[in-house]
Amino acid sequence: MEFKIDGKSHHKARACTIKTAHSTIQTPVFMPVGTQAIVKALDANDMLELGAKIILGNTYHLYLRPGSKTVKKFGGLHGFSKFPNSFLTDSGGFQAFSLSDNSKPDENGITFKSHIDGSKHYFTPQSVLDTQYDLGSDIMMILDDLVALPNTKERIKKSIERTTKWAKEAITYHKEQQSKGIGVDQNIFAIIQGGTDKEFRKLSATQLCELDFDGFAIGGLSVGEPNEDMYETVEWTTDFMPLDKPRYLMGVGTPEDLIENIERGVDMFDCVMPTRNARNGTLFTSYGKINIKNAKYKEDEAPIDPECDCYTCKNFSKAYLNHLFRAGEISYFRLGSMHNIRYYLNLMKQAREAILADNWLEFKKEFYAKRGVTKE
Amino acid sequence: MEFKIDGKSHHKARACTIKTAHSTIQTPVFMPVGTQAIVKALDANDMLELGAKIILGNTYHLYLRPGSKTVKKFGGLHGFSKFPNSFLTDSGGFQAFSLSDNSKPDENGITFKSHIDGSKHYFTPQSVLDTQYDLGSDIMMILDDLVALPNTKERIKKSIERTTKWAKEAITYHKEQQSKGIGVDQNIFAIIQGGTDKEFRKLSATQLCELDFDGFAIGGLSVGEPNEDMYETVEWTTDFMPLDKPRYLMGVGTPEDLIENIERGVDMFDCVMPTRNARNGTLFTSYGKINIKNAKYKEDEAPIDPECDCYTCKNFSKAYLNHLFRAGEISYFRLGSMHNIRYYLNLMKQAREAILADNWLEFKKEFYAKRGVTKE
Repeated sequence: MEFKIDGKSHHKARACTIKTAHSTIQTPVFMPVGTQAIVKALDANDMLELGAKIILGNTYHLYLRPGSKTVKKFGGLHGFSKFPNSFLTDSGGFQAFSLSDNSKPDENGITFKSHIDGSKHYFTPQSVLDTQYDLGSDIMMILDDLVALPNTKERIKKSIERTTKWAKEAITYHKEQQSKGIGVDQNIFAIIQGGTDKEFRKLSATQLCELDFDGFAIGGLSVGEPNEDMYETVEWTTDFMPLDKPRYLMGVGTPEDLIENIERGVDMFDCVMPTRNARNGTLFTSYGKINIKNAKYKEDEAPIDPECDCYTCKNFSKAYLNHLFRAGEISYFRLGSMHNIRYYLNLMKQAREAILADNWLEFKKEFYAKRGVTKE
Repeated sequence: MEFKIDGKSHHKARACTIKTAHSTIQTPVFMPVGTQAIVKALDANDMLELGAKIILGNTYHLYLRPGSKTVKKFGGLHGFSKFPNSFLTDSGGFQAFSLSDNSKPDENGITFKSHIDGSKHYFTPQSVLDTQYDLGSDIMMILDDLVALPNTKERIKKSIERTTKWAKEAITYHKEQQSKGIGVDQNIFAIIQGGTDKEFRKLSATQLCELDFDGFAIGGLSVGEPNEDMYETVEWTTDFMPLDKPRYLMGVGTPEDLIENIERGVDMFDCVMPTRNARNGTLFTSYGKINIKNAKYKEDEAPIDPECDCYTCKNFSKAYLNHLFRAGEISYFRLGSMHNIRYYLNLMKQAREAILADNWLEFKKEFYAKRGVTKE
């Protein structure tokens, strides 16, 4: 992976370029979530038309179905889904923890039961990389030891230590595999944990960031904590992260969250929000969110967002989308999802332009002003 | 509407051209069903890419939601959905009869309750045309008096008489409206009823076909009767239909049904089968139907049908579609529907070519041979 900083602006906002074997990614970047080798309601060509340079796949889901060996047979996620740009895959640990009834970590890994058929599985720092080698993702996330919060300081500390231990095992294993010609074009990111506790975050960040990973993620946020706590934690944590490697804030978030965290030094984001919200009728616009099922759109001839250049806005009225949503037509899901993803991707593009023009504060002010929010 | 016969082949098979205000339709033609101003899981551009020159909308559904006045405000179905080619709309009578709990016909129309909110409505031969003027469809179907079968000869006879009476009222009303500048570009088709009873069919056909309709449909088939009864009824009925007007067999059917009925003189078909079957996992191929969820496709790299030129077959493997279907991904619905519709449209194109080359029997033999069926 090649990484370079193209420009900086106010505070820690930066614009970078990440070059993987499959695409050139300009940051800040939002990665649409394609859990099961597809972004819900869309396909590979839709993602290309939307301009996505990288999407996220979920290792847990793909490991269980169709199975990573099947995906490998088709040339990995790229060949299977026909999306030619980059994939990032998570480790599967978070889903094993959150979707499985009784996942159990031990010193060497995590035992869990499939949410599909109840079958028993075991993830280790090495096994999740093996799965991701099969998936052929451009960026692989390592297994971390997650704990339910709130929890005792002791248990959280133990989880950080275990996460570091597993991270060391993962990087060692990855180097070994690469020396054997496996995963040569694949990159590996570690995940900083520690909740909203500054000392824990510092501990986790310093331990992990001295290891030779290709990039670093901040995990364990956007799990229900107040926004300000998230922003403060990111602000604090990025100071312990190297400048010369990508920084990825996992599972975040709203357009506002993206703007705030770019300013705090984050380069990469992923979230189900644009696609999930679209399916619920919530669509993002430059002027804030709207709900397309609202009766006031029944005869509205305008597109969702007059400033949007997406396929949906170029072709269809709010009235038609309102009708499709109310009539339960599944075509709506594709049209709504395309718009919301394009909104997110365009927002990141505009943020990048603002950074490169060293115009961040003005951009941010305008972003909030259009939403009717006055903010410094 | 302009109509001309371009060629004939074996028995009553014929290839025609129908020119409406919105498109030139070459027959035999299959009209995909877009009940609520959209073909399920697709959009207007998908239909254009598939090559559809005409699609069907359901007056009953559109009358109730979003309401024909709303559709009218957007320039009819063409402006609302952005599909620029032709629309055929049914009268709404069949759905009022089949979807409503307690529809009740009288001498002047049909009372029914909305399946959406239980509200009470009344359709008359005139009111369903008013609705279709608002929808702006290129071909409008008239209201007919449907009876549940089996029924007494007396009731069936009464329904045929009432259908003829309503047809006369409809054509009179339509001419009046056109003289006032309403529905000038819209065409009107009558519907021949009579179940599988030859005398009733003859009675209905002769009464209706002497009226000045733009085309004639055969209704009331494909409702559970044996295939051979359907074919025999069509064979019998088309002899009482004018040669110089389009013939439309409503709600039919399988690829085999289309082939058999083209030979018996039918020009136009519509059916939910390609889209509904796609959503259930059943996909049509030159070699017969397959079910994409079948485990044998889990690692099948081939497209659905090697002879198909649809978007789905050009881009995705059966293995990927199998995965999407099993994983419950809604993207599958679009991909499956596109393939099935393209299969139907291509079949009609091939049938037309065979007719124009006066090669029908050979074409039909090959059609069945590929399916492993030997047939004269």
